[in-house]
Amino acid sequence: MRILTSNVAEHIGKKISVSGWIHKIRKMGGITFIVIRDRSGLIQGVVEKKEANKVLEDLSTESVVKISGEVVKEDRAPQGSEIRVDSVELISKVSEDIPVEINKKEMNINLDTLLDNRQVALRSPHQQAIFKVHANIAKSFRKHMEANDFVEINTPKIVEEGLETGGAEMFDLKWFDKKAFLSQSPQMYKQVMVGVFERVYEISNYWRAEKHSTSRHVNEFTMMDFEMGFIDSWEEVMDMSEGFVNEFVSNLQKECGQELELWKAQLPKVPKSIPRVKLDEAQEIIKKEYKHDITGEPDLDPEGERLISKYALEKLDSDFIFVTHYPTKKRAFYSMDDPNSPNETLTFDLLFRGLEINSGGQRIHTYEGYLEKLKSRDMDPNNFEDYLVSFKYGMPPHGGTGWGLDRITQKVFGLDNIREAILFPRDINRLTP
Amino acid sequence: MRILTSNVAEHIGKKISVSGWIHKIRKMGGITFIVIRDRSGLIQGVVEKKEANKVLEDLSTESVVKISGEVVKEDRAPQGSEIRVDSVELISKVSEDIPVEINKKEMNINLDTLLDNRQVALRSPHQQAIFKVHANIAKSFRKHMEANDFVEINTPKIVEEGLETGGAEMFDLKWFDKKAFLSQSPQMYKQVMVGVFERVYEISNYWRAEKHSTSRHVNEFTMMDFEMGFIDSWEEVMDMSEGFVNEFVSNLQKECGQELELWKAQLPKVPKSIPRVKLDEAQEIIKKEYKHDITGEPDLDPEGERLISKYALEKLDSDFIFVTHYPTKKRAFYSMDDPNSPNETLTFDLLFRGLEINSGGQRIHTYEGYLEKLKSRDMDPNNFEDYLVSFKYGMPPHGGTGWGLDRITQKVFGLDNIREAILFPRDINRLTP
Repeated sequence: MRILTSNVAEHIGKKISVSGWIHKIRKMGGITFIVIRDRSGLIQGVVEKKEANKVLEDLSTESVVKISGEVVKEDRAPQGSEIRVDSVELISKVSEDIPVEINKKEMNINLDTLLDNRQVALRSPHQQAIFKVHANIAKSFRKHMEANDFVEINTPKIVEEGLETGGAEMFDLKWFDKKAFLSQSPQMYKQVMVGVFERVYEISNYWRAEKHSTSRHVNEFTMMDFEMGFIDSWEEVMDMSEGFVNEFVSNLQKECGQELELWKAQLPKVPKSIPRVKLDEAQEIIKKEYKHDITGEPDLDPEGERLISKYALEKLDSDFIFVTHYPTKKRAFYSMDDPNSPNETLTFDLLFRGLEINSGGQRIHTYEGYLEKLKSRDMDPNNFEDYLVSFKYGMPPHGGTGWGLDRITQKVFGLDNIREAILFPRDINRLTP
Repeated sequence: MRILTSNVAEHIGKKISVSGWIHKIRKMGGITFIVIRDRSGLIQGVVEKKEANKVLEDLSTESVVKISGEVVKEDRAPQGSEIRVDSVELISKVSEDIPVEINKKEMNINLDTLLDNRQVALRSPHQQAIFKVHANIAKSFRKHMEANDFVEINTPKIVEEGLETGGAEMFDLKWFDKKAFLSQSPQMYKQVMVGVFERVYEISNYWRAEKHSTSRHVNEFTMMDFEMGFIDSWEEVMDMSEGFVNEFVSNLQKECGQELELWKAQLPKVPKSIPRVKLDEAQEIIKKEYKHDITGEPDLDPEGERLISKYALEKLDSDFIFVTHYPTKKRAFYSMDDPNSPNETLTFDLLFRGLEINSGGQRIHTYEGYLEKLKSRDMDPNNFEDYLVSFKYGMPPHGGTGWGLDRITQKVFGLDNIREAILFPRDINRLTP
């Protein structure tokens, strides 16, 4: 029976078999040291037997083998034990030497080489760690949503129109004899579904056809969305978001310690309550503390995002900060204006280590409210008929937010480029592998 | 504080508030009976007070209200209690009468009307039930995968080429200055990821540009995929599938009893072990038992699928049956041929109540094996370079399958058309809402 490498140490003194890839191989005289990699980790095998060494003779790294032998205690081994190999069985041979050194701590390759060789580069334990954390964050999101009575929905990704930007910055395609677009957000559908289930969530890919090529943008990305009805205050949307942040950080600590350790990544700091600061207050702080003056601007610039995050960490001991009350003109038409301050919206962005990882707020929930807002923007309600119809038939006060899963992962590890946090990224220059 | 309708009965004798939609409203003399619907169910309120009745005067169904009053025991009420309403507060009014009668047991509308009015039709408890089950099945899939050490992956949906059909039956789009396709399956990526995590799964939308308009096909659908490495036998893929079937049926029983009851849907029957029958044996059974002769054909026809399912249910007490060993010429090039029978593959379909709900098997895992198979089909390996590269660097024996989530949901409820099991279906005729 196959034993996973992570369980080998439990079998000291016994004969076992382990199957996996040859992660490292080193020959010294008549002895071969091999490190086997499987889904649970690494284990060292020491091969002295002639027949076993014979099998290894023309095998290189990444060959798939089954090794059998006795487990012995070995304090110098990372796991405290190693395998004295009796036999090596070849399962699958490599046809070419691998193009990247996945068995080194640092592959020392540039981003393009990493992505061009993604299929094998991902086998490196460092790369694996990123995507185990990516999966763990998604799991935490679902756990938090389910615990709070949200229903998972699956909305169409092919749409006739876009809420955010109309058709601008959307990819279009021919859908039989019609023109359609790739969805840029589940916004319309998650609001419609508040009318059905009150609380809904979805994790899915979305697309934006922006031509820029920055370290924080890609054209296909994974969003974690939720939307909740019957809120008494828009702050409930931030409370629910805060709950998720606590959930994912606590699960990372419990379940991904090894992955963070590999990168020497610091667990994100979450205070009892994540600071919430109004945009204009944030701008004042940035000006006062760091002499960067963006007061009066309708948004934070990337430098402003970095500085307010620095402030949150140094002064408030938090890797996260909510910036609230973005001006009406900067936010999507469905944003609810603050009744106490008509040029500001009940919206927020959540910054994590200098990067916006979610954007949300309270939405308009009356049909009349939408007609009025669309009119004020010279937008034609007829273009949004499929969206507006829900509001004709009774919708509760509601709000929600969408999280950039790839961005969160990027910032957990402090990766320079968001592409490193996506298995197979897609951008203006990259459509493969 | 808001109480959910499902918890009202716990508050007999107390004053509470409930918020939701007016599901039904009926006036009799000075008394108004209203049924309030929230995410947890329905509760009846009896309104005698003049002020409260006044608020209700110009409200119709689907208005959103908050009602407050005392909970009283009422044996004739479905929940055993109702609310003597003191006050009614209007939260959100309807602008138009709703176009479908969502408060009736049967809406009595045809499929097109149902789908045209999807945004509000989904509010009907019957419709909600379908999508709660849809979400529950996805949850069971993830639970089963996580319990078996699978890692969730997120693969690109925009691809350069298609494995199954090349570009035929795929939607193409302009990706900046390149041509790209909507992915029809995660096949390539999940196999590549077997090289990384050994065991991977994904739930996502996929697309096929088939022009037909049948009751079992749509052009955008949700697949639940898994792929597992280091299998000793392809039967392990069926075992893992069987485990999921047990998981989802058991969770439906535990968590969705109310939803099934609403439709008088029978819980699927799963025997201790799901029957596995070879294609040619299945054809013999169908001929012998039902005089439908499709022996010698490379597949089952829809009637054959129906009949072998009928046989499984009546003779083997199972709503599920695996049909195995499809001929090489009918299966995708990556399918592993049976070493004992070179014209047959180590593949299977799983039928559920007459409908194929998954298709899977063992894959070729050597580079040479792929070159040989592609050659035998006059296919050019250069077209599959991004796929084949993984097999150059050591891949273990592996297999997997993809489940049609919408189809499973359809068959749980016995719905005539798969569109009824998709929130917002997409086909040749339908791109909205």
